[in-house]
Amino acid sequence: MDTTIWRHPKSIATVSLSGTLPEKLEAAAAAGFDGVEIFENDLLNFDGSPADVRRIAADLGLAIMLYQPFRDFEAMPDAIRERNMARAERKFDVMEELGARMVLVCSNVQEIAIDDPARAAADLRAMAEAAAKRGLSVAYEALAWGRHTRRWRQAWEIVRQADHPALGLVLDSFHTLALGDTLEGIGEVPAEKIFFMQLADAPRMSMDVLSWSRHYRNFPGQGDLAVTEFARAAMGAGYRGPLSLEIFNDEFRAAPARLTALDGLRSLIWLESEAGGPPLPAPPRFGGVDFLEFAVDYVTGRELGARLRSLGFGHAGRHRSKAVELYRQGGVNIILNAEQDSAAAEHFQLHGPSVCALGLKVDDAQRAVTRARALLCKEWRERIGPHERSIPALRAPDGMLFYLIDEQGSDRSIYESDFVLEPGGADSAGAGLMAIDHIAQALPPHRLDSFVLFYKTVFGLQAQALHEIADPYGLVKSRAMVSAEQSLRIPLNVSESSRTATGRFITAYAGSGIHHIAFRTPDLCATLDQAVPAEAAMLHVPDNYYDDVGARLGLDDAALEHLRQHQLLYDRDAGGEFLHAYTEPFHDRFFFELVQRDGYLGFGAANASLRMAAQALASRNRQARPA
Amino acid sequence: MDTTIWRHPKSIATVSLSGTLPEKLEAAAAAGFDGVEIFENDLLNFDGSPADVRRIAADLGLAIMLYQPFRDFEAMPDAIRERNMARAERKFDVMEELGARMVLVCSNVQEIAIDDPARAAADLRAMAEAAAKRGLSVAYEALAWGRHTRRWRQAWEIVRQADHPALGLVLDSFHTLALGDTLEGIGEVPAEKIFFMQLADAPRMSMDVLSWSRHYRNFPGQGDLAVTEFARAAMGAGYRGPLSLEIFNDEFRAAPARLTALDGLRSLIWLESEAGGPPLPAPPRFGGVDFLEFAVDYVTGRELGARLRSLGFGHAGRHRSKAVELYRQGGVNIILNAEQDSAAAEHFQLHGPSVCALGLKVDDAQRAVTRARALLCKEWRERIGPHERSIPALRAPDGMLFYLIDEQGSDRSIYESDFVLEPGGADSAGAGLMAIDHIAQALPPHRLDSFVLFYKTVFGLQAQALHEIADPYGLVKSRAMVSAEQSLRIPLNVSESSRTATGRFITAYAGSGIHHIAFRTPDLCATLDQAVPAEAAMLHVPDNYYDDVGARLGLDDAALEHLRQHQLLYDRDAGGEFLHAYTEPFHDRFFFELVQRDGYLGFGAANASLRMAAQALASRNRQARPA
Repeated sequence: MDTTIWRHPKSIATVSLSGTLPEKLEAAAAAGFDGVEIFENDLLNFDGSPADVRRIAADLGLAIMLYQPFRDFEAMPDAIRERNMARAERKFDVMEELGARMVLVCSNVQEIAIDDPARAAADLRAMAEAAAKRGLSVAYEALAWGRHTRRWRQAWEIVRQADHPALGLVLDSFHTLALGDTLEGIGEVPAEKIFFMQLADAPRMSMDVLSWSRHYRNFPGQGDLAVTEFARAAMGAGYRGPLSLEIFNDEFRAAPARLTALDGLRSLIWLESEAGGPPLPAPPRFGGVDFLEFAVDYVTGRELGARLRSLGFGHAGRHRSKAVELYRQGGVNIILNAEQDSAAAEHFQLHGPSVCALGLKVDDAQRAVTRARALLCKEWRERIGPHERSIPALRAPDGMLFYLIDEQGSDRSIYESDFVLEPGGADSAGAGLMAIDHIAQALPPHRLDSFVLFYKTVFGLQAQALHEIADPYGLVKSRAMVSAEQSLRIPLNVSESSRTATGRFITAYAGSGIHHIAFRTPDLCATLDQAVPAEAAMLHVPDNYYDDVGARLGLDDAALEHLRQHQLLYDRDAGGEFLHAYTEPFHDRFFFELVQRDGYLGFGAANASLRMAAQALASRNRQARPA
Repeated sequence: MDTTIWRHPKSIATVSLSGTLPEKLEAAAAAGFDGVEIFENDLLNFDGSPADVRRIAADLGLAIMLYQPFRDFEAMPDAIRERNMARAERKFDVMEELGARMVLVCSNVQEIAIDDPARAAADLRAMAEAAAKRGLSVAYEALAWGRHTRRWRQAWEIVRQADHPALGLVLDSFHTLALGDTLEGIGEVPAEKIFFMQLADAPRMSMDVLSWSRHYRNFPGQGDLAVTEFARAAMGAGYRGPLSLEIFNDEFRAAPARLTALDGLRSLIWLESEAGGPPLPAPPRFGGVDFLEFAVDYVTGRELGARLRSLGFGHAGRHRSKAVELYRQGGVNIILNAEQDSAAAEHFQLHGPSVCALGLKVDDAQRAVTRARALLCKEWRERIGPHERSIPALRAPDGMLFYLIDEQGSDRSIYESDFVLEPGGADSAGAGLMAIDHIAQALPPHRLDSFVLFYKTVFGLQAQALHEIADPYGLVKSRAMVSAEQSLRIPLNVSESSRTATGRFITAYAGSGIHHIAFRTPDLCATLDQAVPAEAAMLHVPDNYYDDVGARLGLDDAALEHLRQHQLLYDRDAGGEFLHAYTEPFHDRFFFELVQRDGYLGFGAANASLRMAAQALASRNRQARPA
């Protein structure tokens, strides 16, 4: 690695984290941040002195990189100007006790502020002079909704004009990008005059910039703003100071601080690399899903085995040393793990029968692991028997395991290494299922951004547009993460309502997990006609659906009758056509989908609402059924 | 009551309610609606025929007043025009089976739609002609985001030009008011050409109108739009058709349908009256809070009695026939109800020690009850002993009781009627507390709009601006409902996070309830100095607060020292100054506040964040304390 590339200190503003000030500091330190910005209200609400805060931060190994914000200072009428200088001196007292060397002054938002950059410069110069006497400095930032100073260039002109060594500029990605402001010229600001850089992303939203800023910011990589380009511009100017996160987000305020802090540092490490800093190994190239592993016990293992058989899977082998069975069809491997005292057993205990691991084919497992490690991922090694292969694995943010199967690795497959394969059933053609098309994961609503960041940074997946789907009992939001080669597709589903299909899963399953597994077949009618017996229990499609899809997409009567007879759902987009059908859920934990994808790009979102209504009905009927 | 005033049928679109189609119909019927609009997707997802829906609706006594929406019909290029007519015929088939006589056509949003009102008129005329052959009719609506038709007047011009008896206009309050469109001219539309009226309110938000419309609509009276003026204009034109609610709201989709339906009908009854329809009795004029009643048991009753004594209350009497104690100070009456087999006992069982009833002084209790009854409020009568007064009471949406004390009623107070008063302690001056200043209610987040509607329609309170307050563990939103005379002030607090002060209350208390009671004193320092002994346990204020409030509001050192010494919080606004102090919580159920209000209009929101931080710390310390 090129050691001449500067590694910036990483910092986070305390407003970005939930909790009391000591909890915020602890979480920042636990994640591995170098320092923090102290948000003034966190100090005000803290029942201890600034010196206490200084001690706690020092004990945790955190530098206090900034005290913020100081508001409505510059370019005020004379009467207030004097009062503001007195106010600044009081805050300098606090900063000295706190051990903060720099204060952030954000541009004045008051109506009475005077529209005169020279006056603003003179005021800030006076403040910088007073700060310098105490060895402190002042960093000036343009708020996107400032009264007169809104753009970074205006702030820079004022700083330049003030011309004081203790006065510099704050660059803030949100304020700049939210206004669609240009980054041109940032490279020409002298590096020593950029005192601080605050980084925040946000989803693109059409609302007033103040509300957007106060509630919906998120970490770089979680939103839609060009934060990488912004950071590259400042780093290109020679900025060597902290990369610091300042995130106002309603969900972050309520989420466990340690989770948020870990995501924050992951986003900064990724951003620094993307923006030209110390490089990370390239993300893996995926060759698809190699296997799905279900945690089961003896009873649910037999049940799930029967369900798989009804979908055309064959029993293909048994693990050499563990209570683990292998089912196979086409290119799909499914492992049922009932081994006691294993990660799967722990998973089963917490979540019941469910996917506990995925095997992903990658071009270079070692490179993928090195990248993941640099991005603060937890690794995992299962105990193995003699002659079994050790496969590197990563833990997702919810503890699920991703095994990385090196396509260029051993010449024996893991199945040959670890399993005693049945001579005949090794590769059943079964019902024509060829591959795993996509696997959908249900998440608690506030965890969506966290998983988007994980898949984007660690695996290099791209986030697709958010879909909103009406379940009978509330909205479900769905965002698919897809690899460049389209070989790995993971829709992520969240719902604020606990009564939706997604909400019920999260409650029953006690957390996030795979609740929807779609298998691909080249001919769905053939699959359903010839190979899938009745016990696979396909979800019933109401007749009204066919009336509507016919009128809506202009299908003729024969095509409609064909769909109706096979109980298929239909959609099409710019890429092509899509046929699909759902199974009834297995123990309310997950369901299977069978899809025929003829160039189609999406995931059948147009029919998801219908599926949710049918699932709600099926779930109610199961509950009403006498035991 | 003037019986010549037309009472409009009341209807609700099924999209406004949560659940499957039969659940939605059941909820609408249970609330008392006359009919429904069938939202197409609800029918598509229903696993039964349109004739089944017709039977269910008929069994429930609901008319199917509209089938909606039919999209992207008019002014299409020729090729599509023909397909659209075929599509319309198929939907007419469905309508005939459903028993719906009218279809809503919303204005075309497709890019390829032709900008030609004459073409649109011709197409709609053709559709109306086809509908008329089956005895059906077509109602045309301008969507605010339509491609060419966005305003009601454009839609009306097209309908006028088409000139077909089976074609009329839909007026929709949201689409009109969201664009700030004028209501002028609505009165001149011939009444028989207004086929349908859809009503929705919404909070004022600065975002794109489509997102605003799809997620944030609410019932008339719950938002900021001039829905009353809109309805008045249409009713003034002679419209006699249904008043129908069409509400797209993420929270309504997830909330219990019966609660939502009840709120909806309440809002329509209120709206009709405000817009010149059948009048309701005027809302009460309030003379303040007469008493607060706490549900307690023997142990917590003694504890709370001691806490009240420490705040200067005297034991003033005992109920003639029940285990009920009266405490008094200044104009404040507090009743501790430990009577078994009572509403209070039920309340205690569910919620622990807490406020179960409020006594409100009103100018005319009978009028207030008549109004409440017309607005679908539940009444309540407690069993009473001989010579005790029967006080009419209303149940709030969460079951809490509001007793209405008639100021012009009996010449004996309820205390003289029902209590054996102690000769000396009847009106202890105590610590100088004079009145209940305000009482704050914590609600689950999705219930805020419901309570706003209740207080606004039944009691005539006005909703003040929403405040957002940062608790260390998430945001708390607060909206105060205030009577015209400022004699009744009820801030309502909600939080999406279960970890905030509000969230913890909702969890511990198992529902909504009063968690904050503020007493007013003319001299807070005197109250704290002379009368409140240490056991009242006032919440500690961090020193940092005083440093900041001094710098922020420019208080001099003497004033600051005075505040610090008495541990007072300070705020000021256009009306005047505010001093306040909080007690520690009682059993994590509620806390008291002592306030000195010198013209000030608010509720100390500027200091609420500090209070929440201190409460979070106190709550944690209590949990950490050895038992």
